[in-house]
Amino acid sequence: MKKHNFSAGPCVLPQEVLQKASEAVLNFNNDNLSLLEISHRSKPFVDVMEKARALALELLGLEGKGYKALFLQGGASTQFLMVAQNLLEKRAAYLNTGTWSDKAIKEAAIFDDIHEVASSKSANFNYIPKEYDIPEDHDYFHCTSNNTIFGTQMKKFPKTKIPLVCDMSSDIFSRVLDFSQFDLIYAGAQKNMGPAGTTLVVIKEDILGKVSRKIPSMLDYKVHLSKGSMFNTPPVFAVYTSMLTMEWLKNLGGIKAIEKENEKKATLMYSEIDLNPLFKGYSAKEDRSNMNATFTLLNDDLKETFDTMWQDAGINGLNGHRSVGGYRASMYNALSLDSVKVLVEIMSELESKA
Amino acid sequence: MKKHNFSAGPCVLPQEVLQKASEAVLNFNNDNLSLLEISHRSKPFVDVMEKARALALELLGLEGKGYKALFLQGGASTQFLMVAQNLLEKRAAYLNTGTWSDKAIKEAAIFDDIHEVASSKSANFNYIPKEYDIPEDHDYFHCTSNNTIFGTQMKKFPKTKIPLVCDMSSDIFSRVLDFSQFDLIYAGAQKNMGPAGTTLVVIKEDILGKVSRKIPSMLDYKVHLSKGSMFNTPPVFAVYTSMLTMEWLKNLGGIKAIEKENEKKATLMYSEIDLNPLFKGYSAKEDRSNMNATFTLLNDDLKETFDTMWQDAGINGLNGHRSVGGYRASMYNALSLDSVKVLVEIMSELESKA
Repeated sequence: MKKHNFSAGPCVLPQEVLQKASEAVLNFNNDNLSLLEISHRSKPFVDVMEKARALALELLGLEGKGYKALFLQGGASTQFLMVAQNLLEKRAAYLNTGTWSDKAIKEAAIFDDIHEVASSKSANFNYIPKEYDIPEDHDYFHCTSNNTIFGTQMKKFPKTKIPLVCDMSSDIFSRVLDFSQFDLIYAGAQKNMGPAGTTLVVIKEDILGKVSRKIPSMLDYKVHLSKGSMFNTPPVFAVYTSMLTMEWLKNLGGIKAIEKENEKKATLMYSEIDLNPLFKGYSAKEDRSNMNATFTLLNDDLKETFDTMWQDAGINGLNGHRSVGGYRASMYNALSLDSVKVLVEIMSELESKA
Repeated sequence: MKKHNFSAGPCVLPQEVLQKASEAVLNFNNDNLSLLEISHRSKPFVDVMEKARALALELLGLEGKGYKALFLQGGASTQFLMVAQNLLEKRAAYLNTGTWSDKAIKEAAIFDDIHEVASSKSANFNYIPKEYDIPEDHDYFHCTSNNTIFGTQMKKFPKTKIPLVCDMSSDIFSRVLDFSQFDLIYAGAQKNMGPAGTTLVVIKEDILGKVSRKIPSMLDYKVHLSKGSMFNTPPVFAVYTSMLTMEWLKNLGGIKAIEKENEKKATLMYSEIDLNPLFKGYSAKEDRSNMNATFTLLNDDLKETFDTMWQDAGINGLNGHRSVGGYRASMYNALSLDSVKVLVEIMSELESKA
C-alpha cells in the first residue's frame, strides 16, 4: 500500500514518473544501458536536457520571450549566493517572509549591501508583508513565493522597474501566474519537479553581465547558458526525472489544470482546519499557502491519539517544522485529493471522539 | 544483452548496484515510499548518508586519522573553486597534467596567485612531469591523479610539508595508495563511485579555517562539516547509489582486490596496443593510466572496419576525446575483464584481417 505522503520535501512524486525513472536506471531508451551509465554528451541525454529546458519554459508560458532555462546543482541554497554574485553591484532589495528569505539575505550580504524592505519576522513569519517601497536605484528585488515552514504564500507580486527575482522552490508549476513579470525564477527540484539534486533556473538573459566582479565558472549564469546547461556533467538522473514530471504535468493539462486540483485540496484542508474546533490554522488567512497548510492541535492531550490515527491510516510526513510546531500538510502537485480526504476524515473523526 | 561499456564517464556501474537503485526508486527500505519521496531528515536517509561517509573513509583507510568525508553537489568543477576559496590565502602550487588541472588552475586564479610548478601542455599532456619544486611558503599543492582525456596517471606523489590536494575523480577507489599523504581528496561520483550528481570530498579537518575571506555557506567546507554533509537537501539518489557502489567494493575485498582486477585489465589492454602493429599508444609508457587507455589506429583506411567490428560486438563509448583523437578504452572498477577481452579480440582480429 502506497502511503499518503504529506512530506514537505523531498516529497510525493507521480507514480508513473517513479515507474519510468526506475526503469531507466536499468535500461534507458531501450539501449541496454542504464541512464546512469551513458555519456551526458550522447544524443539520448542531450535530448533529455533540451526537452527538460524547453518544457520548463513551455509550462511557464515563457517561450519566445527572452528567457532561458538551466538545470544546475546545489539547490536553492546555491542560488542564494549565485543571484547576488551575478546581479548585485551596489545594493539589492529583499522581502523577508521566512527562513528561506532570511538565508537568501544572509548569503547575499557576503557580496554587498542588502536592503530588507519589509519583514514579518517579529510575528514568526505568520503573514506576508504587503506595504513597502522598492527603490528604483537598487539592482534587483528578491522574494520567496511560498514559505514551506510557515505555510504562507505570496498571492500578488510587487510591480517594480528593477529586475524581479523569485525563489519558487516550493510552489513552482502549482498555480497560474504571469511568469513574465519575473526576470529570474529559481526552484530546487524536490517539491513539484523531481528528486533532490537539481535546481531549475529561468533567466531573462538581458539582466546578466552588469556586475564588475569576476565570477567562477560554476557560479556564472552566463557560462552555463553558453554551454546549454552542460558546462560540466549534469545530474543526469535528477534532470531526467524532472523532465518526466514536467511531461506528466503537461499531459494533465499544464499549470491551469493542476491549479484547479490544488485549489480543491487546499479548500478541503483549510475548511476542516477552520470548522473543526480542535484545530487552529497558523498563518494569516489571506496569505495561506495552497502548498503547505500549517496548523496546531489546541488540546495537547489529544496529540497521541491523533498521531496514532494518521499514522495508522498510512499518512507520512505530517509533523510541523520545529520553528512552528504542530502539523504541516504539504499538498504538492502529485498529492491526490484522496490523500487530503483521508487526512480530513481523520481530523473529523477525532472531533467526534473528543 | 548488456553492452560492454568503455565510456569515459558517466560510465559502467555494477549491475547489482543498478538493480538495487532501481528498486529504491519504487520502494525504499520496504517502507512503501520511493527513496526520492522521503525526507532527507528521516532516519532511513540520515543512515544512508552516514554509512556513505563512513564507507568512503573505511575504503581509503582513513578512519580515525582526522579526516571527514562529505558528499556535495556541483562536480569536481565546483571543487576547483572551493579548494581555492577555502585554502588559498596568498599563493598555491599547481601541477598541470591535462584539461582538468588546467581548469582547476583557471578557477583558482580568480581568488589569488597560482604558481604552475610544471606542465606537460607543450607535449599535449602525453606524460606526467616529475621534476619540480614545491615552495614551502605556498598554501597548498594541487594535482590531478588521473587524466581521463590523455590517459596518464600519477604513479607517485611528491613529498611536501604543505597540504597536498588531489583531484581523484577518475581513479578514486581503483588502486592502493597511502591516502594519508593527502590532506584533501575530491572526486566527482560518475566514474568509480556512482551516478553524476554528487562529489566526494575527504578533508583533514586541521587544514581549514586559515583564510581570511568570507565564504558563502554552500562553498564553505566548515559549514558542510558542521552539518554532517546535510547543510541543505543532499542529492539523495546519487548519495544512495554511491553508498551501494562502495558496499559492493567492500564486499569484493576493497581497493586491494579491485586493484588486482584493474591491473589485469590494463595489462591485457596495453599488451595488445603494444604488440598489435595496427595500433599505437598515446601516452608515455611509465605514466599510462590503468583507468583510461588512449590509442590510435595507424592506418586510417581501417577505421570504418574497426568501428563496425566493435560496435557490432556491443562495445560502447570507445571514441577518443577530440583533444587526442583515436580511441579511449575506459576501464573503471565496474568494467569486467571479459569486456576487455572482447575488445582485445577484435583488435587482434583486425590485425589478422589487415
